[in-house]
Amino acid sequence: MRLLIVNGPNLNLLGTRETDIYGSKTFEDYFVELQFKFSEVELAQFQSNTEGEIIDQLHQAHDGKFDGVILNAGGYTHTSVAIADAVAGIDLPVVEVHISNVMDREEFRHTSYISKYCVGTISGFGLESYLLGIQSFLNDSKDKD
Amino acid sequence: MRLLIVNGPNLNLLGTRETDIYGSKTFEDYFVELQFKFSEVELAQFQSNTEGEIIDQLHQAHDGKFDGVILNAGGYTHTSVAIADAVAGIDLPVVEVHISNVMDREEFRHTSYISKYCVGTISGFGLESYLLGIQSFLNDSKDKD
Amino acid sequence: MRLLIVNGPNLNLLGTRETDIYGSKTFEDYFVELQFKFSEVELAQFQSNTEGEIIDQLHQAHDGKFDGVILNAGGYTHTSVAIADAVAGIDLPVVEVHISNVMDREEFRHTSYISKYCVGTISGFGLESYLLGIQSFLNDSKDKD
Amino acid sequence: MRLLIVNGPNLNLLGTRETDIYGSKTFEDYFVELQFKFSEVELAQFQSNTEGEIIDQLHQAHDGKFDGVILNAGGYTHTSVAIADAVAGIDLPVVEVHISNVMDREEFRHTSYISKYCVGTISGFGLESYLLGIQSFLNDSKDKD
Amino acid sequence: MRLLIVNGPNLNLLGTRETDIYGSKTFEDYFVELQFKFSEVELAQFQSNTEGEIIDQLHQAHDGKFDGVILNAGGYTHTSVAIADAVAGIDLPVVEVHISNVMDREEFRHTSYISKYCVGTISGFGLESYLLGIQSFLNDSKDKD
Amino acid sequence: MRLLIVNGPNLNLLGTRETDIYGSKTFEDYFVELQFKFSEVELAQFQSNTEGEIIDQLHQAHDGKFDGVILNAGGYTHTSVAIADAVAGIDLPVVEVHISNVMDREEFRHTSYISKYCVGTISGFGLESYLLGIQSFLNDSKDKD
Amino acid sequence: MRLLIVNGPNLNLLGTRETDIYGSKTFEDYFVELQFKFSEVELAQFQSNTEGEIIDQLHQAHDGKFDGVILNAGGYTHTSVAIADAVAGIDLPVVEVHISNVMDREEFRHTSYISKYCVGTISGFGLESYLLGIQSFLNDSKDKD
Amino acid sequence: MRLLIVNGPNLNLLGTRETDIYGSKTFEDYFVELQFKFSEVELAQFQSNTEGEIIDQLHQAHDGKFDGVILNAGGYTHTSVAIADAVAGIDLPVVEVHISNVMDREEFRHTSYISKYCVGTISGFGLESYLLGIQSFLNDSKDKD
Amino acid sequence: MRLLIVNGPNLNLLGTRETDIYGSKTFEDYFVELQFKFSEVELAQFQSNTEGEIIDQLHQAHDGKFDGVILNAGGYTHTSVAIADAVAGIDLPVVEVHISNVMDREEFRHTSYISKYCVGTISGFGLESYLLGIQSFLNDSKDKD
Amino acid sequence: MRLLIVNGPNLNLLGTRETDIYGSKTFEDYFVELQFKFSEVELAQFQSNTEGEIIDQLHQAHDGKFDGVILNAGGYTHTSVAIADAVAGIDLPVVEVHISNVMDREEFRHTSYISKYCVGTISGFGLESYLLGIQSFLNDSKDKD
Amino acid sequence: MRLLIVNGPNLNLLGTRETDIYGSKTFEDYFVELQFKFSEVELAQFQSNTEGEIIDQLHQAHDGKFDGVILNAGGYTHTSVAIADAVAGIDLPVVEVHISNVMDREEFRHTSYISKYCVGTISGFGLESYLLGIQSFLNDSKDKD
Amino acid sequence: MRLLIVNGPNLNLLGTRETDIYGSKTFEDYFVELQFKFSEVELAQFQSNTEGEIIDQLHQAHDGKFDGVILNAGGYTHTSVAIADAVAGIDLPVVEVHISNVMDREEFRHTSYISKYCVGTISGFGLESYLLGIQSFLNDSKDKD
Repeated sequence: MRLLIVNGPNLNLLGTRETDIYGSKTFEDYFVELQFKFSEVELAQFQSNTEGEIIDQLHQAHDGKFDGVILNAGGYTHTSVAIADAVAGIDLPVVEVHISNVMDREEFRHTSYISKYCVGTISGFGLESYLLGIQSFLNDSKDKD
Repeated sequence: MRLLIVNGPNLNLLGTRETDIYGSKTFEDYFVELQFKFSEVELAQFQSNTEGEIIDQLHQAHDGKFDGVILNAGGYTHTSVAIADAVAGIDLPVVEVHISNVMDREEFRHTSYISKYCVGTISGFGLESYLLGIQSFLNDSKDKD
Repeated sequence: MRLLIVNGPNLNLLGTRETDIYGSKTFEDYFVELQFKFSEVELAQFQSNTEGEIIDQLHQAHDGKFDGVILNAGGYTHTSVAIADAVAGIDLPVVEVHISNVMDREEFRHTSYISKYCVGTISGFGLESYLLGIQSFLNDSKDKD
Repeated sequence: MRLLIVNGPNLNLLGTRETDIYGSKTFEDYFVELQFKFSEVELAQFQSNTEGEIIDQLHQAHDGKFDGVILNAGGYTHTSVAIADAVAGIDLPVVEVHISNVMDREEFRHTSYISKYCVGTISGFGLESYLLGIQSFLNDSKDKD
Repeated sequence: MRLLIVNGPNLNLLGTRETDIYGSKTFEDYFVELQFKFSEVELAQFQSNTEGEIIDQLHQAHDGKFDGVILNAGGYTHTSVAIADAVAGIDLPVVEVHISNVMDREEFRHTSYISKYCVGTISGFGLESYLLGIQSFLNDSKDKD
Repeated sequence: MRLLIVNGPNLNLLGTRETDIYGSKTFEDYFVELQFKFSEVELAQFQSNTEGEIIDQLHQAHDGKFDGVILNAGGYTHTSVAIADAVAGIDLPVVEVHISNVMDREEFRHTSYISKYCVGTISGFGLESYLLGIQSFLNDSKDKD
Repeated sequence: MRLLIVNGPNLNLLGTRETDIYGSKTFEDYFVELQFKFSEVELAQFQSNTEGEIIDQLHQAHDGKFDGVILNAGGYTHTSVAIADAVAGIDLPVVEVHISNVMDREEFRHTSYISKYCVGTISGFGLESYLLGIQSFLNDSKDKD
Repeated sequence: MRLLIVNGPNLNLLGTRETDIYGSKTFEDYFVELQFKFSEVELAQFQSNTEGEIIDQLHQAHDGKFDGVILNAGGYTHTSVAIADAVAGIDLPVVEVHISNVMDREEFRHTSYISKYCVGTISGFGLESYLLGIQSFLNDSKDKD
Repeated sequence: MRLLIVNGPNLNLLGTRETDIYGSKTFEDYFVELQFKFSEVELAQFQSNTEGEIIDQLHQAHDGKFDGVILNAGGYTHTSVAIADAVAGIDLPVVEVHISNVMDREEFRHTSYISKYCVGTISGFGLESYLLGIQSFLNDSKDKD
Repeated sequence: MRLLIVNGPNLNLLGTRETDIYGSKTFEDYFVELQFKFSEVELAQFQSNTEGEIIDQLHQAHDGKFDGVILNAGGYTHTSVAIADAVAGIDLPVVEVHISNVMDREEFRHTSYISKYCVGTISGFGLESYLLGIQSFLNDSKDKD
Repeated sequence: MRLLIVNGPNLNLLGTRETDIYGSKTFEDYFVELQFKFSEVELAQFQSNTEGEIIDQLHQAHDGKFDGVILNAGGYTHTSVAIADAVAGIDLPVVEVHISNVMDREEFRHTSYISKYCVGTISGFGLESYLLGIQSFLNDSKDKD
Repeated sequence: MRLLIVNGPNLNLLGTRETDIYGSKTFEDYFVELQFKFSEVELAQFQSNTEGEIIDQLHQAHDGKFDGVILNAGGYTHTSVAIADAVAGIDLPVVEVHISNVMDREEFRHTSYISKYCVGTISGFGLESYLLGIQSFLNDSKDKD
């Protein structure tokens, strides 16, 4: 199983700023942990602050390279019809994740254009939301066996 | 680790009706599978169609019996301030789960009074949402070691 | 033909209070009249002020005992996603009735979570709304002959 | 008892188009069935696609010719203050009927300017909504005896 | 000075129904009084329940026959973009009048598509709203002398 | 007949500023014209930019001194529940006037807390709105004779 | 004078959890204090987490047993049309109380279906809101002497 | 190919009034140009200010006489559920056109009940919107060859 | 204990107008009763129809003269951010009172800018709302002993 | 005449995915057809998934290279003030096109920030919307001759 | 250059209360600093808690005494159409200032009736917002040289 | 002191297009003036039409290079949660500036996702808004001395 993690705007700041909220672990460090934990899964990651590059990446993910996408669209979650259309337009299953509990934050974060087109949503578990995203693919894959 | 799964209204119908949507597996059968899969976890479950009984159960869960709750409040998710207050009022961590992708259904299902007071939310993975809920507690528990 | 009439909150007050609005006939008295009028129909009735008990009853109604339900959910009409889900979840045809003309009352009574999942709605004819509800089943049944 | 059935816009299409939704029976054919079924009632019918002609007809209905009106205002239900004013302005009891379950259709069909001024509303029973409308007048009339 | 009074839907009922609200004077009788009071003004009147006929009449009013229009669009006031466009489209000054104080009635009567394109609005003075409408034209005319 | 004209905030600027919109006539000058025109009416006027002073004046107007009030509450029209309560609390008939056509201006000017408690509203006729306000009292008074 | 205090969902948690907000006094302890303070009043209390049981209790309160009700409907305040209907349906005066200042909390707590049908509302005085509720009945009772 | 152009309220004013906005060409003149330009198409036109007559015409258009309709419903675009139902009820393809760019005008012109049931919408090109409407049918027809 | 009662707009009309609603007791008379009833409290009162004077008074109340304020801001309750800011800006505890049950009146009276910054709110008990306001301070004061 | 077609996010997927909705023709293939059909027009095209690149391109289009732009902003249509500002900021006429009938899709697709600044909008004609866009420029150009 | 600083409600509390938020400097002290800093500018200041007095002052500012106004309307910013009209009605340039960052406070502080009619707005810089307001006039004045 | 000016979409058009609104000065020219005026400040500038590049730049600004940012996010102001998150995520003080008075433009420009996380906002002073932005940093800096 090959999975791509796509991170949206400001997620490159993880571990270096607002560490009281997000902790002092960078996503790169966490990603290594994930690779270690899930040695049977081929994991890749991509981060961009640009909406269009996230769409580009989702398009490319489809071309035989990955079996699924774990998407944290950050601030674009609440404003981007274009990313939502990209999720809808590709055949890959996409799982939406959020580090924080978005429903316990500002009201404009309570809506997501993207959720509707995803398999499901996991939010509020800190970095472990990504881990649960991977497990969702593995559970699913085991069920099929 | 002792976890309580609390199911709200109409979830007793699982597996017997609308099987095209929810599958033909009853929650009881699925619960046995979960117990088998997580032999290290002490799992219990409770279902009620009555808002007040769900609140009673959440109150009782706290008294030293459980380490966490996995809550699928069904239709009460979108209408019950009282259950939300109960979640806020107890010290136990509560994880909100939904079988279906609520964001891909009617608009009145897009709001949740409960999410705000939970650790996090997992929705859209079918019955496996419960499984991911249990994993979220285990991941968390491992991290603390 | 076996039909179940399900009455929601405060409908047990019929005939004893606010008699200027609802008249001085109790539902029990009216129910006897209905049974007399429709001797060919097996009529039963259930009333509860508790949302969950109404859901329980709707679930049980399905198990071979009834051919249809006449539901006056009272105040829960406007607030209960859970009862609406129960109506959607059972295979029985459900007819929604209201004693008063809800559209001529407060604005919060103009919406119904339940209507959508019912065969149809009859409102404003006083107690005769129940009678019309029964007739709707009989008309339908005759048509099939 | 003399009753007038007033049909609004597009109801002249009944039975000839969108037959999968509305069936292949024209309203004229159905009207003959109604006259046959209720031989004790003097039934008349009127259809117009023009808002003003429906108002004219409601005004005229009052002048000693009819004891009540069964009104399906079609699309004008949701947009016509003028027809609602006409219903309010005449002394005749008016019963609002709809063939389809309007609450299970687009949101703009969930509001009715007219309901408020009618005796009651019957919707969702197909053509039998008219039949229930007639029965509502007969029930009422019997009660008075 | 030649003025046309255009009355919309249900205003033909004036004086014959709901006399407790609108009084027992028909508009025809009142119109004679107005003609008597304003002998120097050439007054005409038109009433229709049909939106399109009101538009037709507004179009024709312009062709050299009248110097101004007094318009009581009744229920169409709140729903008709088409009449509003007609008022905007003709060069004649139009004064909007209402018999009742629309701001003291249902909320849907608080909006008017038409006011914006009129010279001004006079509402709440009973039938005397028409009289004030005529006076507004005369005041204006005197000012120009 | 004794009438009081109450002018609200900024109406003291009439005739001296924004003369392209409001003309170059001060309200004082116009008031002299009104007194001249209606020699049979005892006219008084009051202007204040302070909400509370307008309320004070409305209270005092009642004490046997005036038969009616013509009120142009200016910007307070759209924001003052307190002035509306004052109008409702005194027994004098109050006529609301506006110089400009408020429905053809910003949307926040389309609502009036005050209209509901007034006899009627006259807006859009420039300074002549006051004149029509006086005429409305005279018409009314003649009718009673 | 006999008064019934009805407490809604989660109020059984008082004094044992979230003690920083609600203090460490249980309602039972506080109730004893109230009984001590108002020896001339026959005080009873009832608590339930279930909406229907609160309605049941309100119905029963009426049957000659009590002269008034002090109701803290907790989270149901903001969501229960059914409890509001029960308050409206019984003849007893009901006083609404809240421990916290609901207007200083989340926006969904700013609306109350119940207030409208109560004599009055007292909120924000901590447990003393109940005491003020009792005093409101006593003040009223003294006035009648 | 036979196409019917249906024009709604106030479009008969084209070319004679508000010529600064709509130009000085009447629709009749423009229609002759269209007939000249598309000699291979059988073009007809109909205009009415009455909602019901537009519906009548749409019904009749279907009966074998036309292959498509170009509809400019004018002010009814934003208020008529009845015309929208007519468009939905007939089998003919309908293309919605507007002379002005409705999205650059008042907000109430930004919604259309009709668009949803049409093949497509063309707006903002002046009278050439009709020409593009005809071309849309021809393009479509050529594609099918 | 020294308490200041601040009354807002139109409350000077109490007892002299709308006596069917507010009774025939003036606030001055009632105030004497209050002083008699609470001889241990130093009571003062202030009334103004002017928003700014109420703010001035609130500022002055703080300067060592009073221990608390009972505020009935009348119509300013629903519109005055400035008074709300004044309440927030002074250190004195302020209790909001209303004579009528504001939640049973027009919808614009359901919101209060002020409540949020007050200790609590008491509404609906007629003039006794003031009495309860005083009692709330006394209860509170006794608790501290 | 030189025209630039600008395609926004996900339009690069045309013909390769969701072929049941959008057909199996790629935009490149369709573009060749257009060039063939309109040999007298110099056609160019640009596609990007990035909002900023679309803005860059619109800026560049102005510099003497093109006479007009045909813009399908895809998902950015409903969310991009920045692209709307770019359209407003350049002097070139821009025609907005959409492949699907956006008014028959989700409600968030019913609004367009861009329409207001365009010459006109063409939507719902499939790929032929582009063709009609080109024709709109040609019609216009011929008219000027 | 002569500039008038107008301060609205509660700004007289600056420096004496809520000093943790607003600092311990009174506006009078700060004003002396400003006068010292801008010796070339003739500075005056006015504060009132009364809406009407602020309007009076704005009117008077115009009469040749000042070249501009720096206005902090405090709580009236969000509720006063009357002050907004005063700003619009005078010819002087008015700059709106706020001490706090209003957009980071309650939602009702996010709207300003006044901004629209001002030259510009400066908010969030503490007392230095006034200083920047003065600088905005000086910058402007230098540019003209 | 080192300050970075970040300009968003379409601000590269300054001085070359819509010169009647924005003047004929390019930002580059103006920037030179600013550098000249504030020789003691190290000024840099960055412009991009791409949301993500603005975020990238904000991230980089933090790394020891600058003491503050002056941000004009153009059209992204009203739509970009992602840029707002970037402002919140970096430790640098950010001052929001706008050339035009955004509150006097379309309603969608009245909201800003970004303001909340900035030190303050300056809008409406034309290009001088940037100058005031720099002055705000200098004022602040002097205060600290």
